Amino acid sequence: MKYYLEWPEPDPTNLPPPAQDIEPWGETRVVGKPLPRVDAYERVSGTALYTLDMALPDMLHGAILRCPHAHARVTRLDTGRAQAMPGVRAVITAATPGAAIPWYFRGQGPTSMLFDEHCRYAGDEVAAVAAETPHQAILAARAIDVEYEVLPFVQDDAVALTPEAPAIHEGGNILGQETSGRGDVEAGFAGADVVLEQTYHTPCEIHTPMETFVTIARWDGNRLTVWDSNQGVFGIQANLARALRLPLTSVRVICNYMGGGFGSKLGLSKYTVIAALLARTTARPVKIALTREESFICVGNRAANTIKLKAGVKRDGTLTALDAVFLGSGGAYPAGATSTYLVQALYLCPNVRVEDNEVYTNAGPSRAFRAPGMPNCAWALEQMMDALATEIDMDPVEFRLKNIATFLQINDTPYTSIGLRECLSDGAKAFGWSEARARPRGRGHVRRGVGMAAGMWAYPGDPRATVIVKLFADGSVNLNMGASDIGTGTKTVMAMVVAEELGVPLDRIQIEHADTGTTQNAPSSGGSQTVLVSAPAVRAAAIEVKRQLLELAAAQLERPVEQLVFQDGEIMPADAPDQAVALADLRGLRGRQVIVGVGRRHPHPEGKIALPFAAQFAEVEVNILTGEVRVLRLVAAHDSGRVMNKLTYENQVFGGMAMGIGLGLTEERILDSRQTGKVVNANWHDYKIPTAKDVPIDQTCVPIDPHDTECNTTGAKGLGEPAHIPTAAAIANAVYHATGVRVTDAPITRGRMLSALAERRGE
Amino acid sequence: MKYYLEWPEPDPTNLPPPAQDIEPWGETRVVGKPLPRVDAYERVSGTALYTLDMALPDMLHGAILRCPHAHARVTRLDTGRAQAMPGVRAVITAATPGAAIPWYFRGQGPTSMLFDEHCRYAGDEVAAVAAETPHQAILAARAIDVEYEVLPFVQDDAVALTPEAPAIHEGGNILGQETSGRGDVEAGFAGADVVLEQTYHTPCEIHTPMETFVTIARWDGNRLTVWDSNQGVFGIQANLARALRLPLTSVRVICNYMGGGFGSKLGLSKYTVIAALLARTTARPVKIALTREESFICVGNRAANTIKLKAGVKRDGTLTALDAVFLGSGGAYPAGATSTYLVQALYLCPNVRVEDNEVYTNAGPSRAFRAPGMPNCAWALEQMMDALATEIDMDPVEFRLKNIATFLQINDTPYTSIGLRECLSDGAKAFGWSEARARPRGRGHVRRGVGMAAGMWAYPGDPRATVIVKLFADGSVNLNMGASDIGTGTKTVMAMVVAEELGVPLDRIQIEHADTGTTQNAPSSGGSQTVLVSAPAVRAAAIEVKRQLLELAAAQLERPVEQLVFQDGEIMPADAPDQAVALADLRGLRGRQVIVGVGRRHPHPEGKIALPFAAQFAEVEVNILTGEVRVLRLVAAHDSGRVMNKLTYENQVFGGMAMGIGLGLTEERILDSRQTGKVVNANWHDYKIPTAKDVPIDQTCVPIDPHDTECNTTGAKGLGEPAHIPTAAAIANAVYHATGVRVTDAPITRGRMLSALAERRGE
Repeated sequence: MKYYLEWPEPDPTNLPPPAQDIEPWGETRVVGKPLPRVDAYERVSGTALYTLDMALPDMLHGAILRCPHAHARVTRLDTGRAQAMPGVRAVITAATPGAAIPWYFRGQGPTSMLFDEHCRYAGDEVAAVAAETPHQAILAARAIDVEYEVLPFVQDDAVALTPEAPAIHEGGNILGQETSGRGDVEAGFAGADVVLEQTYHTPCEIHTPMETFVTIARWDGNRLTVWDSNQGVFGIQANLARALRLPLTSVRVICNYMGGGFGSKLGLSKYTVIAALLARTTARPVKIALTREESFICVGNRAANTIKLKAGVKRDGTLTALDAVFLGSGGAYPAGATSTYLVQALYLCPNVRVEDNEVYTNAGPSRAFRAPGMPNCAWALEQMMDALATEIDMDPVEFRLKNIATFLQINDTPYTSIGLRECLSDGAKAFGWSEARARPRGRGHVRRGVGMAAGMWAYPGDPRATVIVKLFADGSVNLNMGASDIGTGTKTVMAMVVAEELGVPLDRIQIEHADTGTTQNAPSSGGSQTVLVSAPAVRAAAIEVKRQLLELAAAQLERPVEQLVFQDGEIMPADAPDQAVALADLRGLRGRQVIVGVGRRHPHPEGKIALPFAAQFAEVEVNILTGEVRVLRLVAAHDSGRVMNKLTYENQVFGGMAMGIGLGLTEERILDSRQTGKVVNANWHDYKIPTAKDVPIDQTCVPIDPHDTECNTTGAKGLGEPAHIPTAAAIANAVYHATGVRVTDAPITRGRMLSALAERRGE
Repeated sequence: MKYYLEWPEPDPTNLPPPAQDIEPWGETRVVGKPLPRVDAYERVSGTALYTLDMALPDMLHGAILRCPHAHARVTRLDTGRAQAMPGVRAVITAATPGAAIPWYFRGQGPTSMLFDEHCRYAGDEVAAVAAETPHQAILAARAIDVEYEVLPFVQDDAVALTPEAPAIHEGGNILGQETSGRGDVEAGFAGADVVLEQTYHTPCEIHTPMETFVTIARWDGNRLTVWDSNQGVFGIQANLARALRLPLTSVRVICNYMGGGFGSKLGLSKYTVIAALLARTTARPVKIALTREESFICVGNRAANTIKLKAGVKRDGTLTALDAVFLGSGGAYPAGATSTYLVQALYLCPNVRVEDNEVYTNAGPSRAFRAPGMPNCAWALEQMMDALATEIDMDPVEFRLKNIATFLQINDTPYTSIGLRECLSDGAKAFGWSEARARPRGRGHVRRGVGMAAGMWAYPGDPRATVIVKLFADGSVNLNMGASDIGTGTKTVMAMVVAEELGVPLDRIQIEHADTGTTQNAPSSGGSQTVLVSAPAVRAAAIEVKRQLLELAAAQLERPVEQLVFQDGEIMPADAPDQAVALADLRGLRGRQVIVGVGRRHPHPEGKIALPFAAQFAEVEVNILTGEVRVLRLVAAHDSGRVMNKLTYENQVFGGMAMGIGLGLTEERILDSRQTGKVVNANWHDYKIPTAKDVPIDQTCVPIDPHDTECNTTGAKGLGEPAHIPTAAAIANAVYHATGVRVTDAPITRGRMLSALAERRGE
């Protein structure tokens, strides 16, 4: 099912015209270099001010009372005791005037209220308090007297499908069911030499970013400003304005430094609206910072998936058919749970059928999580590909090379470029694949093995961005863009584009970003689109500045514009470099004091599609006595187009793979589905994200740059999500190579590893 | 002497070209209306956050140790005791690394250091402290042990001129002496029927804005952000960057709500640099808020003036000669003290000589103060005009009407428009001048009289502004401008210009202003130039947005642009208004998501000069037993060109006149020049600014709009300063009319009034 990344979609029929013809870059002087982040000092020294760090004068603190039952109805609610607690300034509930706000998930019709008497998971919002201190607010929230009618709950996806299951929404528990595909799957299987069928399972994972979820709301008359830790201020602004029935201009959303989101901070959350309501009620600024526990329970997760996959292949390695049934639940509210994309698109296959089932369950709602649905799908597809290769006795890399699609099979659109072949072959070479594959796998209780997996990523939309670059009379630059820097280095990469074009040093570029009051439209930083949407707009804006500078220089040098060139921050006649004029000496610039360039992104290339590809290789060690799996080394070969900054590129890749180790080996939300329906490991002690000790030191990044001049004017294709897609599957395949055992349920815990080994031994 | 308003001057030889041809407004729908301020609610409800209200997390508070002597040298300084005080985090002095910063006044060469061992007035900065609380900082500053060599001081302007006076600067005490003029003054006096000579004196006044002087400095790595209560962020940024040897892009200056300045907050002050140094030393944000006492002593004043004026006139009212000698002191450092402009320019006179003398004295430095030098000059010139009219038995209004100059006599430049004649005649009519003049002046101890005075204002430069207007897809607008709103309604007037052009309601216009990180060049809000520099740029930007909208609409309506008109926020074919499309329905706008218009001000009209003119009329009551003067009513007739907002226009005029009552009747800094050289009335109790009880309820504003289409594209000519220039002189003339006595020394205190009455009686 398509993920809705919660930003307002532009009208696709009205693309902006290109600002000007922009040539692809030849050799670059700044772009591509491994430069440290422009805000590295602030980030490591602790001076960077994250939303969580902020305090406003007279600020109150909010806390939310959440339903303790997995499924219940509020029958009585009394705030009297809470109102009388020390420091309490406001208690709001569904009955508070102005709080009856219908709540939208994924842009669909309202499916609940801000405070809903029908509580559909243990964590649903029931009431909220503002008090002088965070502790007072929490104590007062606990003192609100609520009586619940406790209802039977369902948390098993398959059970939720049955008619006997408790109904979570009026229309029942089925959120979506659709089947799609191409060709004739049965004919495909009939023509296959080998047909395999397997059911795979991936766990529910939690985003758990370092900075928890936090909003500070402040009213100036009827205008609201929120400082909010999120991935895209314009989407939050639009949805917040809708919730509060305000015009866009009355809502300003700001996010400066941001401590991670991974998709969980793409959309508007209820706590943000609650903070705004509390601030309006108390006429004081209100900060709501969710606790670590709340950040595990209430603000998103990666839905668990069950994927039944059947595949047919000929002895020569030709795929003949793929048939997949997906089952997932985004929890209690409409939320994306699955992605069938890789089955449909990654490999050349004439006959494909996918059946997608999404159901409601009494659990916390899921949200986009780094490559929504894709690593789950890769977990199934890439293990199946590995099994097929084994079955036909073909090298897994060879097998994939044989099935590369040169166009997008979903809609027969050609790619602007496809580096998957190089990802596979160059990655294998860098890894030493053939040698490693042939090495002995060990004899004692420690076995070694290597495995690999591939992937691709598809963007969720075709968003627009408008960027303003200002050059001041002293030759310094202001870069004004709406894009958020969620820690990935967006500010750095965009400043490098300006530096590339205008020849100004990075420390002369001041960046204003992610503030709806001072910047303009940009998509949320998600979907691996930030660079490829905003960087071309930055480039266009800088080139527009350059165009105006050349006009000014033409007057000063008494030469026509066509005879002038811009180089290293100087303008000179092409035939007389000795007449070069530095920007600060440009009299016309001093006259105007500022040159303003507005730039827009060109729309996606017409009739083609630009997508990134990946192949990752893993070596693991499995202790067959303890079931422990250790990742020894990883190689990631990515075609994400141009490398904008070698350092941040590697950061993205290594970060994505670390997260993949989590999916493959450690992470899993655990629900007490028998008794309470609550999350039992809602903390960093019991929910295991990989630490530095779980991530191999030996990691290599192999960038594949197909020199794509069609995708956009920078040649970059997006990296954040692809870096995470194949990792877990590659690890699983390496585990199979080491042990001869397939663990089809992620994560490969010691228990699951030992069970699988025991099963093979026939125990 | 020319005032340096401390903003960086653009290169006058490189004017920006007009963005496009812009027609003068015909009838307006929004501009001119008496609309309340867009931020009125915030300002009156107390939610508006002024710099003084702000607090940052972990913020320290700074305090400054100031020299207690009028003239001294620091011989020893020991910070040991202060360093050990509770809460103290830093003590900085001249010896602190990085604190040896040369200090510039009025853009001239450095005349002192940030902390100078040579202290030239009682208030000079000696050291500073940062501590956890303001009280701790003040106590620690007092605990710094300093030994001074106390030097003899001089505070009398005339004495300072003599060679025996203590030298305040190495080059002596004479800051400037220049003589200028035209024609032959002696011949002019010879040809006169009446020659009068009189010496006038105006006091030193203090700006004393409601919000005192305050800076919060915060470093992000090597980048500095200061929230600072000032009148122009770009000037502060430029001077702060110079002081700290940083590129412009490393210094961000922000001023949102601002609680008054009147000229005292145009330039960089030492406390701002000190806050930045303390913040760098402590690695924490530091706030320095000057005390009310410091704001009286250290951050500017209107210099006292002594003006000796000799004038010749023929019986028919023709002025034949003006000879003036000005003496003023800007205190201990280079600062403007006098303005000879009105003598040179206000009235037609072929023979003019002005001698200007500025000296140093051991007193707090002066600064630009609402119409720098002009009300002082008007005090002399307009009383002299009144006396001449009496002498030749001509009505003072008639006399002035006879001497109106139709061009600027200083450089023979024609005016774009001159409404002085209408100011005089329409103002007189609105006041009922002839009737009031003829009314009996009373017999008992309470006498009534009426008087009037005229004025004009000259801008200090030809600054530039660049404005960006963004129209979002929901039809809302962001107005991005560098100009500060110092309480005068700048945001409101500029939003009205956008509303006029784009037909959007004011509450759909969000304003970002006065932030060097997010806006672009604009002059400081001073010199009555804010509207006439920025409003044309706003208009040009809005028109550029409209141009792009028409292009988008042309595609949608399938009509050429020339056939379309923009009206009330809709676009329609001129011949088919039923096909009108609202902005929010413009598909192309939704495609682009934002339309960005960049606008610049056209330069001053070539070969002409645009200046505002004024005439004000006062009726007073004088108690000849107590010497008390009460202003009963005021009429102000102003040619400031177009009235942009009737309400804020009147606010400016009434505010300017209230300040004029202060100059005429109540305000005067008093120095203990005999003993300590200190200010003895540095508080609101002993320094008397007019209160609501001193300002008449009966005030009338008569706007004169000469429909000037040449001055700029809005027709507005500036109002802030002219509103203040003639008031005090008009009151003095009314006092003379009531009593037959001239009080030539301002303010007309009870003592001065009684002395003058006694003198007339020959006592």
